[in-house]
Amino acid sequence: MTLNDALSKLTALETTLRAYSHAIGCLNYDGETVAPRNSAPMRGETMAFLSGIIHEKVTAGETGEILDTILAHRDEVSLKDRRRAEVLKEQRDDLTLVPADEFMAYQQLMAEAMQVWHDAKLASDFAAYAPYLDRIIAYNRRFAERKDAKRPAYDVLLDGYEKGLSHETLDPFFELLRGELTPVILAVAEKPRPDVAFLNQPYPIHLQKKFTDRVMQIMGINRDDCSVGETEHPFTDGFNKHDVRITTHYHEDSVLSNLYSVVHEGGHALYELGVGDELQGTVLAGGSSMSIHESQSRFYENIIGRSRAFCEVLLPELKALFPAQMAGVDEEKLYHAANLAEPSLIRTEADELTYAMHVMIRYELEKAMIGGDLKTDDIPGEWNRMYKKYLGIDVPDDRRGCLQDSHWSFGAIGYFPSYALGSAYGAQMLPQMQKDIDVWSVVRSGDLKPITAWLGEKIHHYGQLLTPNELILSACGAPFDAHYYVDYLKGKYGELYKL
Amino acid sequence: MTLNDALSKLTALETTLRAYSHAIGCLNYDGETVAPRNSAPMRGETMAFLSGIIHEKVTAGETGEILDTILAHRDEVSLKDRRRAEVLKEQRDDLTLVPADEFMAYQQLMAEAMQVWHDAKLASDFAAYAPYLDRIIAYNRRFAERKDAKRPAYDVLLDGYEKGLSHETLDPFFELLRGELTPVILAVAEKPRPDVAFLNQPYPIHLQKKFTDRVMQIMGINRDDCSVGETEHPFTDGFNKHDVRITTHYHEDSVLSNLYSVVHEGGHALYELGVGDELQGTVLAGGSSMSIHESQSRFYENIIGRSRAFCEVLLPELKALFPAQMAGVDEEKLYHAANLAEPSLIRTEADELTYAMHVMIRYELEKAMIGGDLKTDDIPGEWNRMYKKYLGIDVPDDRRGCLQDSHWSFGAIGYFPSYALGSAYGAQMLPQMQKDIDVWSVVRSGDLKPITAWLGEKIHHYGQLLTPNELILSACGAPFDAHYYVDYLKGKYGELYKL
Repeated sequence: MTLNDALSKLTALETTLRAYSHAIGCLNYDGETVAPRNSAPMRGETMAFLSGIIHEKVTAGETGEILDTILAHRDEVSLKDRRRAEVLKEQRDDLTLVPADEFMAYQQLMAEAMQVWHDAKLASDFAAYAPYLDRIIAYNRRFAERKDAKRPAYDVLLDGYEKGLSHETLDPFFELLRGELTPVILAVAEKPRPDVAFLNQPYPIHLQKKFTDRVMQIMGINRDDCSVGETEHPFTDGFNKHDVRITTHYHEDSVLSNLYSVVHEGGHALYELGVGDELQGTVLAGGSSMSIHESQSRFYENIIGRSRAFCEVLLPELKALFPAQMAGVDEEKLYHAANLAEPSLIRTEADELTYAMHVMIRYELEKAMIGGDLKTDDIPGEWNRMYKKYLGIDVPDDRRGCLQDSHWSFGAIGYFPSYALGSAYGAQMLPQMQKDIDVWSVVRSGDLKPITAWLGEKIHHYGQLLTPNELILSACGAPFDAHYYVDYLKGKYGELYKL
Repeated sequence: MTLNDALSKLTALETTLRAYSHAIGCLNYDGETVAPRNSAPMRGETMAFLSGIIHEKVTAGETGEILDTILAHRDEVSLKDRRRAEVLKEQRDDLTLVPADEFMAYQQLMAEAMQVWHDAKLASDFAAYAPYLDRIIAYNRRFAERKDAKRPAYDVLLDGYEKGLSHETLDPFFELLRGELTPVILAVAEKPRPDVAFLNQPYPIHLQKKFTDRVMQIMGINRDDCSVGETEHPFTDGFNKHDVRITTHYHEDSVLSNLYSVVHEGGHALYELGVGDELQGTVLAGGSSMSIHESQSRFYENIIGRSRAFCEVLLPELKALFPAQMAGVDEEKLYHAANLAEPSLIRTEADELTYAMHVMIRYELEKAMIGGDLKTDDIPGEWNRMYKKYLGIDVPDDRRGCLQDSHWSFGAIGYFPSYALGSAYGAQMLPQMQKDIDVWSVVRSGDLKPITAWLGEKIHHYGQLLTPNELILSACGAPFDAHYYVDYLKGKYGELYKL
C-alpha cells in the first residue's frame, strides 16, 4: 500500500466511523433524554449491533495496514495525518484485545446497567445493581490485564483516559490535596456559615429555563449549534462542532444546581464547538482527553462561574427573573452563597474546596475494586467509611452514596480522577490567561467571548492534535504543577472565610 | 439455497435492517424535535450513509435469492413467512430501480429540503423552496416511470402508499365527496356560528402539558412505551412496540389544537403499540399502509375525539385545569366548538366536514404536478385558485397555503389521499364496532381500552400480515365503501347544525 493510498483509505474509514459514531451517539442521547423507558432493551441491541460494526472496521486487517503504512512515514506526513493514524491506532490496539462477540456483549451489558442503575438509585437499592457492576468491574480488569499484564490493572485503565497517567502521579497528587486542603476544610468548618436562606425558596422551573437561556447567552454559546436537554445526571455530547448537546436538571428548590450544571456543561460544549474546522470528520475532532475536557468545564463552572465578577453579572439577571426570592440579596451575599464550603454528600453539588475529596475517595475505591482488594458487595460500606473519615459525614443511603454517579454503569472506571486533574489544569491556566487578558474585567462585561477565544486558541482548536501534556506545556509554558490548584483554593477560601 | 437456509438468512437480514432503520429513525426524530438547527447538514450525511447501507443490503443479489427461494415455496410456508418475503420483495423491487448513488443523493436532498421548507414556511417564501420541491417532483416522476412506464406516473406513486390504489378509485371517491359534501358545507355556512369565545383566551402551556398527560391516560397509552415531544408539525414514529414517539405543538391561544394533535397522533401510536409480539423485529412490524394508519388516527381524533361522549369526559378535565377559561361552558358548548365547521386555511386544523376538500385539492394538485400539467412555480397560484373554488376562501400567504404541509419535503407525493381514505375506512369500521361493543358508553366511562382492544384484534395486531383490502374485508365484513363516510358526516353535521 502506498502512502497516498493509505491516506485516502484513512479518510474513507473516518467517514464510515463518523457515521456510525454519530448514530450511536444520537441513540444514546435520545435514550438519556426523551426516549420512553421500555425502549431500552431494543436500543441496547441496536447500539450493540452498530458498535460491532465499528469494532469490525477498526480491527480489520486493512485498517492495520493503512495505519502501519502512514506511521512508517511518520516523519514525512503532516502532524495532523500522523496524529490521525496514532489516535486510531490506539483505538485499534484496544479493540483488538476484545473479540467482537465479547465487545458487543459488553455494549449490551452497559445499556442494561444504565437502566438498572437508574432504578436502583431511585430505590437506593445497591443489591439490585451489584451484579451488573460486578460484571463491569470484571470486564475492565480482564481488559486491562490483556492490554498489559505487567502493570497494575487500574494504571492501565487510567492510561486509557489520560495517556501516561498512573498511580505514580495520582497518589502524590491526592496526597498533596489531602495534606494541604484538609486543614483549610477544618478551618472553614469553624467559621460562621454564610446566610443562604434566600436559596431555600421555590424558584419556578419555567423561569429557571429562561435563566438557562440567559446564562448560555452570556457564555457565548450559539444555540443553533448547541441544544439543551434535561436529564437526572447532566452531561455533554458533541457529535460535531455544529451539533453539541448539553443537559441540565431543574429542581424548584435549588436554583444554583441548574446554574452550575449549565455553566459546567457549557464549558464542555465550548470545547467541542471550538475544535478546528480542519479536524471535522477526522478522529481528531474531539477533546484531547477527559482531564483536558474537565479542565474546561470546571474552569467555567468554578474559576469563572463562582467568581465575584460573575456573581455581579448574574445578580441583576436573577433579580429580574426572581424579584421576590432575591429581595435583599447583594453581590457579596450571592458570592458567598455560591461558594458555601462544607462537607456534603453529592459530588456534583460540592463546593470547590471539598470537591477534590469526593474524587479522591472514588480514586481510592476504584483502585481497590480493580486491584481485587474490595469486593463489589463491600463497596457501600467502604464508601460510607471513607465519607466519614475524609469528610466527616454519615451517608444516610446509597442513593446519596455509592449509587449517586452514573459513570461505572457506562463502563467508566478510572475516569473520576479527570475531574480533579482537570480542575488543577484549569487553575494552572488562569495565571497564563491573566497575562494576556484582564480576566475579571471581561467577566464583569457580561460577555465571556474573549475568555473562550483565549482557550480556543490555546486548547480547543487543537482537538486531539496535541496530547494532554503537550497542551498543558503549550498553554501554560510549563509542565503540569498541582501547586497552582492548591494555591488557588487556599487563596480563594482564605479570603472568603477570613482564615 | 434451501428453504430453511433462506428463512434463517431472512431473519438475519431483518435484524440488520431493523438496526439501521432504528438508527435512521432516531436521527430523524432527534432532528425534528431537539437537535440544534445547524446540525442538519451532518445529520443528512449520516442518514444518507446509513440509508445507503440499507439500499446495499436490500438490493444485494443474495437477498433476491433468499426471497425467490421463499416465494417459490409460497404454498408451504406460513402466512407470516410468505408476507415477510412479499413485503421485502416489494421494497427490493422499488430500491433496485434506483442506483445506490442516486438513492443516497435523494436522501440528502430530502434532509436539506426539510430544513429549507421549515425556513421558507416561516418566511412564507415559496421561491426559496421551489428548487428543492422541483427536484423532489422530478425524482418521483422518474422513479414512477422506471417502475412502470405504461401507467400514469401518479398512479404508480399512489400504489406505493396503498397497494392497488389509482385514479380509477380516487377520482370517483373524491367526486362522491365533492358532490355529497358541498351542499352540506354550503348549508352549514347559512347557519349561526356556534359560540367559541371561550377558546379565544390564553391557556397556559405548562397546563396544556398536564392536559396532554391526562388525554394520553384516557386513551390508555402507556407512557413507558410512548413518549411525547414537540414539533411544529406533529407526527408519530414507531421504532418498535416499546418505543413509539408522538409529537404535538402548543399554542397558548389554541387549546383544541394540541388536544386533537395528541388524540390523532395517539391513534397512530396505539396502532404501533398494538402490533403482534410475534411480528417484532420482522419487516411486518408496522402499519399495513398509510391509509390504514390514518384510519386509526382519524378514528380516534374525530369519530371518538370529537364525539359528544368524549366531550363529556373532557369537560371536567378542562374545567379542573382551566377553571376561569372554561367558566360557563357545558358539554353541548364544548361539543359544538370542537365541531365548528367552516372553510379554513389549514388542513390539520380543519373540521371533519371540510377536511376532505383540503385533501381533494392536494390530490388534484399532485396529479397535475406529477403528470407534468403543473409547473412547480405555478403551484402557489393553482393552490390559491382551488382553495377559492372549493372552499370559497382567499389564501393570504404561502405559509398558510402551499407551504403548510411538510410531506413533499420528505418525498411523500401520493400520500395525502391516505388521510381521506383513512377517514372513510374509519367511518366504515364504526358500525361494525357497535355490533360488538357499546361504543359511546365506553367513551363516557373515560377509559378507551375496550375500543383499542377491538381495533387491536381487527387491525393493529396484524401489522403488515394482511393487506389493506384484506384488513377492511376482515374488520368490516365487506369491501371498502365510501358511502359510510358520507353518511356519517351527513348524519353528524345534520344533527349538529339542524340541517
